[in-house]
Amino acid sequence: MQWYVVASVLTILTSSQGIFTTLSQSNGGYKYDYSTVPFLAEVFKVALAIEIRIRDPPLFPIPNGHLQLIVSSMLLWRECQRSPSPKMTTDWRSVRLYPIPSIIYLVHNNVQFATLTYVETSTYQIMGNLKIVTTGILFRCCLVDIKTFILNFKGYVWFLNFRHIYISCSRLFLKRKLSTLQWMAIVLLAIGTTTSQVKGCGQASCNSVFSSPIQGYMLGILSACLSALAGVYTEFLMKKNNDSLYWQNIQLYTFGAIFNLAKLVLDDFRSGFERGAWWQRLFNGYSITTWMVVLNLGSTGLLVSWLMKYADNIVKVYSTSMAMLLTMLLSVFLFNFKPTLQLFLGIFVCIMSLHMYFAPPSVLVDLPLTAKADPESIVEVSVDRRTAS
Amino acid sequence: MQWYVVASVLTILTSSQGIFTTLSQSNGGYKYDYSTVPFLAEVFKVALAIEIRIRDPPLFPIPNGHLQLIVSSMLLWRECQRSPSPKMTTDWRSVRLYPIPSIIYLVHNNVQFATLTYVETSTYQIMGNLKIVTTGILFRCCLVDIKTFILNFKGYVWFLNFRHIYISCSRLFLKRKLSTLQWMAIVLLAIGTTTSQVKGCGQASCNSVFSSPIQGYMLGILSACLSALAGVYTEFLMKKNNDSLYWQNIQLYTFGAIFNLAKLVLDDFRSGFERGAWWQRLFNGYSITTWMVVLNLGSTGLLVSWLMKYADNIVKVYSTSMAMLLTMLLSVFLFNFKPTLQLFLGIFVCIMSLHMYFAPPSVLVDLPLTAKADPESIVEVSVDRRTAS
Repeated sequence: MQWYVVASVLTILTSSQGIFTTLSQSNGGYKYDYSTVPFLAEVFKVALAIEIRIRDPPLFPIPNGHLQLIVSSMLLWRECQRSPSPKMTTDWRSVRLYPIPSIIYLVHNNVQFATLTYVETSTYQIMGNLKIVTTGILFRCCLVDIKTFILNFKGYVWFLNFRHIYISCSRLFLKRKLSTLQWMAIVLLAIGTTTSQVKGCGQASCNSVFSSPIQGYMLGILSACLSALAGVYTEFLMKKNNDSLYWQNIQLYTFGAIFNLAKLVLDDFRSGFERGAWWQRLFNGYSITTWMVVLNLGSTGLLVSWLMKYADNIVKVYSTSMAMLLTMLLSVFLFNFKPTLQLFLGIFVCIMSLHMYFAPPSVLVDLPLTAKADPESIVEVSVDRRTAS
Repeated sequence: MQWYVVASVLTILTSSQGIFTTLSQSNGGYKYDYSTVPFLAEVFKVALAIEIRIRDPPLFPIPNGHLQLIVSSMLLWRECQRSPSPKMTTDWRSVRLYPIPSIIYLVHNNVQFATLTYVETSTYQIMGNLKIVTTGILFRCCLVDIKTFILNFKGYVWFLNFRHIYISCSRLFLKRKLSTLQWMAIVLLAIGTTTSQVKGCGQASCNSVFSSPIQGYMLGILSACLSALAGVYTEFLMKKNNDSLYWQNIQLYTFGAIFNLAKLVLDDFRSGFERGAWWQRLFNGYSITTWMVVLNLGSTGLLVSWLMKYADNIVKVYSTSMAMLLTMLLSVFLFNFKPTLQLFLGIFVCIMSLHMYFAPPSVLVDLPLTAKADPESIVEVSVDRRTAS
């Protein structure tokens, strides 16, 4: 399977996720007032709802990671029936690395909530685009620098294990040296998604993005770095050996599910079991649309794992950014939202960025060696003619 | 002199022109209300005032072209004193081409006023960015296509003269084949300038860009094409032979001045000489700032001619776009305007575009031949290590 097919499917699924969430809201007590409710605020709300729901289910306990766990187990079992049987590293030194992404997400979650006490939701959403740039930076620099750092502290046995992994992994990261143009493409993607989110003329709340306290911006940057770190670390885990994708998924989601469960139990203890234990209200308030969202989240999770192993973080970032734009564009048609000029400008910038990043250099620039012959001959002809005039 | 020095000076002068015009307005009966007057509307007004003042002086008859004519004559005279004396083609077949840009601007002027009856000033200003793209298209395609067209209609003597010039000129245009990346850079420049002009949240007038009648958009596109055609044709005139720049300027501005004069006389006849003849009110209401604007217009005119001869239209487009952004940025500091997020996003996009267009390909992408050796060796080393892990 080609990576761009997977990335496209991920884009469509992520986008439909936003649409489903909006649909599930409009079926409930929430009604739209097309003339007064500003377009982008809605999209922000939807996007944020998804973001929070993935990592910290606020409305109902979506069994995050459990579905992926079940599907991955089934797929691994099927793979085991065939020969050759899939490669599975069960060494504790490898397994113990898998909770790390979950831990980073846990920290990120708390930073996220701290940020939201300082800044508005719309500003938070706009700062979220920083993640694209930090992913680019960490993707390129982080592991190489850690490797150099580790080589300077050879004494520690634990660190040496890491070093071993890093050296075997460094191929993947060093090979993926980004060209200046690709760097520019990543920054343009961040600018494009931000442009599309700029509040339109005549929108309800009008606080400037520049009016938040400095702590808000610092936490926003920290949040972007943590999010990128989790992504890059997951990619490193998926690529560090030739283990079966499903086995890696099982390790990743088992720890994810444990962390989620711990959070649910903790919440129960905090609220003094007033709504009963978590398993008693697991499927409370689940409609068909909710199940669609759960299924959607599950499949996008699996696709992201695939991309991390066989493509990379940047592909994932492009996929989710395009999904956001697609959601906004679909909202214009489906929910009768008023389109803004900046939405279209943002979409154009992102499409350019996509082309700049992924098109081969020979398509983008005229390479000096091949393009020389033709214009030269024309110059000679025309110079002769010109002197005669 | 390097073209980028001239382009930078042009940027600074054009930008200060906007600032001077604003200053000259605030000295008069016009006062700013910083809290209610929206930021961008002001900048639009200033930019439009300059645009109209250049081509159709509404407030006072600025002697457009006369200053440039005087300066160019002096410079040509100085050049004639030296040896070798400058090349000057006085053949009527060459001279008769010089009124063409003025004629195109005359048509453009009328289209401009027709457009403004259908669309708002701010929408007009946003559509003005189309000029960047049409310049790119005409710059690349127009003359080559006209040439092919002419070759199919060999019968006409007048056309044959044109053909002769086109063939001698085709070198310059064919040589300037734009790469995909340069095309993308031009589109990004248009997007960037548009983004910076997007109305901010909470601005006074809130009409959508999409709400004008279709005629407005058609006329806007025609206006952009005419503006680009005038630019590309001027470039063609300046480059078609090795004549002295000052001699070419004199021809260009003599016809420009004649057209201007004709317009002034026509206006006098239309108004029935109620304000006296044009020469009686030539310097009425001139303040020092007005003289600064006149001087500024004169020098930018000469710099544009220089760029047309020794650089090209695209350089000029970049220069004026950057000037617009610089004006907006300076307005934030000088006139206490409230900066918008989209202004900074637009500036970033334009800077990227600038780098994409002008940086040599070897800086932007890793060329396949030179970049091969290093990563390959790393791959081999790490693969060995990886299989051992």
